[in-house]
Amino acid sequence: MKDEPQEIYLDNNATTRPIPEVVDAVLGILTTGYGNPSSAHQRGSYARRTLEMARAQVASLVGASEDQVFFTSGGTESNNLALNRVSEKEARHLVTTETEHSSVLKKARFFEQRGIKVTYMPVDYMGRVNVGTLKNALEESADLVSVHWINNETGTEQPVWELGEVCRERGVAFHIDAAQAAGKLEINFNDMPVDMLTFSGHKIHGPQGVGALCVKQSDRVFPVLFGGDQERFIRPGTENLPGVAGFGVAAEIREKDLLEIKSRIKALRDRFEERLIDVFPGLCINGDKENRVCNTSNILFSGVDGMALMAQLDREGVICSQTSACNSRSPEPSHVLLAMGLSQEEAFSSVRFSFSVLNTLEETEIVADKVTRSYRKLLEFEGREVF
Amino acid sequence: MKDEPQEIYLDNNATTRPIPEVVDAVLGILTTGYGNPSSAHQRGSYARRTLEMARAQVASLVGASEDQVFFTSGGTESNNLALNRVSEKEARHLVTTETEHSSVLKKARFFEQRGIKVTYMPVDYMGRVNVGTLKNALEESADLVSVHWINNETGTEQPVWELGEVCRERGVAFHIDAAQAAGKLEINFNDMPVDMLTFSGHKIHGPQGVGALCVKQSDRVFPVLFGGDQERFIRPGTENLPGVAGFGVAAEIREKDLLEIKSRIKALRDRFEERLIDVFPGLCINGDKENRVCNTSNILFSGVDGMALMAQLDREGVICSQTSACNSRSPEPSHVLLAMGLSQEEAFSSVRFSFSVLNTLEETEIVADKVTRSYRKLLEFEGREVF
Repeated sequence: MKDEPQEIYLDNNATTRPIPEVVDAVLGILTTGYGNPSSAHQRGSYARRTLEMARAQVASLVGASEDQVFFTSGGTESNNLALNRVSEKEARHLVTTETEHSSVLKKARFFEQRGIKVTYMPVDYMGRVNVGTLKNALEESADLVSVHWINNETGTEQPVWELGEVCRERGVAFHIDAAQAAGKLEINFNDMPVDMLTFSGHKIHGPQGVGALCVKQSDRVFPVLFGGDQERFIRPGTENLPGVAGFGVAAEIREKDLLEIKSRIKALRDRFEERLIDVFPGLCINGDKENRVCNTSNILFSGVDGMALMAQLDREGVICSQTSACNSRSPEPSHVLLAMGLSQEEAFSSVRFSFSVLNTLEETEIVADKVTRSYRKLLEFEGREVF
Repeated sequence: MKDEPQEIYLDNNATTRPIPEVVDAVLGILTTGYGNPSSAHQRGSYARRTLEMARAQVASLVGASEDQVFFTSGGTESNNLALNRVSEKEARHLVTTETEHSSVLKKARFFEQRGIKVTYMPVDYMGRVNVGTLKNALEESADLVSVHWINNETGTEQPVWELGEVCRERGVAFHIDAAQAAGKLEINFNDMPVDMLTFSGHKIHGPQGVGALCVKQSDRVFPVLFGGDQERFIRPGTENLPGVAGFGVAAEIREKDLLEIKSRIKALRDRFEERLIDVFPGLCINGDKENRVCNTSNILFSGVDGMALMAQLDREGVICSQTSACNSRSPEPSHVLLAMGLSQEEAFSSVRFSFSVLNTLEETEIVADKVTRSYRKLLEFEGREVF
């Protein structure tokens, strides 16, 4: 990335920059701490201690106990593992939403091909699932309800507590994909009416390639992979020890200052939106402004192609995105925004800015300037009325 | 690992120490090169280039083309992915051996529970599968034959070329688990009668948490995980970019001096065995001495408990192991050695030493001394005749 203009990275819902403490932890394992946690010798036992220390750190971030945490290769695998519970059941009915991550939606489509019923709950114009919708869906018996906590595109927060209570009343297992929630919300897994919870390292300034599934009843989880006895047979394969160690440190640091981090990030995001709305008073922010995670701003830039805006900002060193990275090579408009009732054109005009603890107020002001200028320029180019 | 005596690491079939170039590559991605390869912006495109460069390096090590390489989280996942081909077939018959890694054997057991037939081919006293045995097994139509190239416990090399020819004649897909072969043998995937090939990063001084499956016909591979379009939908989920980059560098460095590395490691292993046989002329080496990978020495220390020997050596800073790390927490004797006809007692008396390019002749001499002393001491303790 040499000779580039100073970059301002606002695509933190796609992946985050590992913090120095994480880099050090990974480095320590790769150099002196390498080893196979399954080995019976001293080096193996050191590796096991590293693994279990990371498990404690990761568990603590989400209020789980250590024996509830199973390490995976990331959020996609954790979601697949959680959903696999359905395929072992007899009732064979999965309830989810239209705005899930592709790892849930694609696994659901696979289930449908196998004759398993899937109910995709619609969302309202702010991206929220209604509790009544879940009650209706559960009039038919179901094995599992899987809902994301925070939408990765809009930041909209689902009413997971209320949804969980409905599941609990009906005795249906409830999984939440907290990939975008962990490290941004206070989470107390053991207080929540939730059976399984997904999150991952690289969304909280940890390394890529490592995630976790928290599980209350591990005997109800059906593995996706088969092999050795790692992670109590729920996730076999030599552990990604450097990744896990980095994930642990990222979780620990995140937990320490969570409230402060949260309000600091929110202040940047709010300032950014305030600056834009000052200039473009009609600007529409996608999602639920009342129930929205601290770091995400998904803005509908009416009249311009969001991809063009994104590309222009990219040239100026501002890194943002249009949709989930996992769908970004697809020429389709965002399924999340369409499900909220936006038109194709509106979806294509929308751009996501996702802040992190590494962003500064100065960066925020610079980005607000650049977005303002670029949006104006593109509107002029399109011959549209300029605010 | 502070205040430990200088360690001599001879458990390289379990995991290897990442070389400095690998550490640098991982570090580079974690600090300046971080990014999501699926992102549409410059940072994403830099990440994509990193990913594709690593793919080329990894492909080259095994003589595959880049579009044949699919990155996974490691050998266990690659094996599961390869075997998944069976579950999508109608004939529903898997042929494998009794001495596979647990990721193959456990997946096979899972198939059996689903009514899929599995034939476990026996091996001879050296651990080799007979080509005639395969011919017999294939008298019944089969979807897939899966055989490891090099046994991780004994180093015994399977006649994969001959086995592959039999599969090809009969039109049956052939998968080889080359986790212990890659980087120790010259491999030319595209010249071989092989359809799929597994290997992983952490066995060749790359990082843990990353592996690959090479595939000739990718439309015949059925994914284990569902989600985004990464790895052409065959392996979704945000890529482990630091891991992949490290794997790439490890593969490139390994390929460069493969022949020299191979003969250097073999010289150490052979010297080690020569030293021991000098003192204990009746010492039995498990496996096929004629067809054995360069780095592995699995020795039957008659009359003593191998675990006790291993523990004694561990205290003296010599790191070796008794069986596959993936099974090492199990109190069972090695399934590989039992399949070769060893008794339970003989299996428990066996210890594996696996060398790497990082070991030296000086270390080898020291280990030979220590093993000689420890074996003598344990024999005395057991009241056995001392050589």
